[in-house]
Amino acid sequence: MKFSKVPEATIRRLSRYSRCLEQIQAKGGQVVSSAQLASKCAVNAPQVRKDLAYFGQFGIRGVGYYAGDLLLDIKRILGADKEWRMAIIGMGNLGSALYSYKDFLKQNYKIVAAFDINPPQITGRISEKLGKPIEILHPDTLKEVTKERNIEIGIITTPADQAQKVANQLVEANVRGILNFAPTQIEAPEGYIVKDVFFTTVLDNLAYLLSA
Amino acid sequence: MKFSKVPEATIRRLSRYSRCLEQIQAKGGQVVSSAQLASKCAVNAPQVRKDLAYFGQFGIRGVGYYAGDLLLDIKRILGADKEWRMAIIGMGNLGSALYSYKDFLKQNYKIVAAFDINPPQITGRISEKLGKPIEILHPDTLKEVTKERNIEIGIITTPADQAQKVANQLVEANVRGILNFAPTQIEAPEGYIVKDVFFTTVLDNLAYLLSA
Repeated sequence: MKFSKVPEATIRRLSRYSRCLEQIQAKGGQVVSSAQLASKCAVNAPQVRKDLAYFGQFGIRGVGYYAGDLLLDIKRILGADKEWRMAIIGMGNLGSALYSYKDFLKQNYKIVAAFDINPPQITGRISEKLGKPIEILHPDTLKEVTKERNIEIGIITTPADQAQKVANQLVEANVRGILNFAPTQIEAPEGYIVKDVFFTTVLDNLAYLLSA
Repeated sequence: MKFSKVPEATIRRLSRYSRCLEQIQAKGGQVVSSAQLASKCAVNAPQVRKDLAYFGQFGIRGVGYYAGDLLLDIKRILGADKEWRMAIIGMGNLGSALYSYKDFLKQNYKIVAAFDINPPQITGRISEKLGKPIEILHPDTLKEVTKERNIEIGIITTPADQAQKVANQLVEANVRGILNFAPTQIEAPEGYIVKDVFFTTVLDNLAYLLSA
């Protein structure tokens, strides 16, 4: 299904709604009004209705939404109803931190491989920190491992000066989704999707709001 | 200066423009057209002009922008022309990773304190990893340390079940800006600004784009 011209902020809020709906479900909630969902997610109710309206008609007027149904619908919209298999490239502090979040990720996101240019030096140290053995592979094997393990998303957590090289290797391996945590802009050909996660972007955003 | 109704996406792009302008300056660029800036930042030129138009008139028609002047203007808009002093609370993997980014942050963002509920146990290990001694304080001292060190932004990197408690301590200490990396929604009274950085939000966004 394709939905054109949906603002990126709406997609981000859908992700937030799905997290809130999971919490509501965990507490036994079955029906939820847009006002309750809004309050749980710290947005306003018209915003919830407007965001959902991009994708069709949800819920029952005067009643609300069935939490389970809405959650499934949102996951379907987000493409989060399938399993996404991911690799982390760069197992320094940040890569290790993300890797150790492994078990906290939503079930449909799986980290299935970890890469680093210095596997022998770091494998022991990271295994010790994680409390269990970890397999760390050399990026030279990225193409074949990607094929074997059906990797669709690559997470770049290398230093800035290595990031473009790794991005090229991901493109070479036909990994279409790239999440870049390295503090530099990287480029990929059309058809590949790069999302940057810059710590300073969110700090700039916060600074702007604090100054206003 | 106040600018109302500026989309959040514009603020995020301004942050990106400032990063690109810094790179352009570092390479000796003095004048830059909106097309060049757009290309460097992987957006389109009309978007650059539209984003800047929210804040007034910049650049010279037919010539472009003076890179240095535009950078200063954008920093002023973002509130990034002053020093922001920050504390990290929760020195596990993620907290340590962010702390070790200390030296890579833009000069106006300074991490001036690190807190954890287990300072004695972790101080030695983290100092060893960082290659230099680190002072880790107990969150019970947050209020007095905030005052002494003029902390305005608190970065929460605790487990989810500790995050709201830490947020309350930050509010108690009058830290107005909160950056929350813990995978849970936290609440703060009016006047405080909370920005969440959820790994899964950006993954959901990427999954959406890959599915489209």
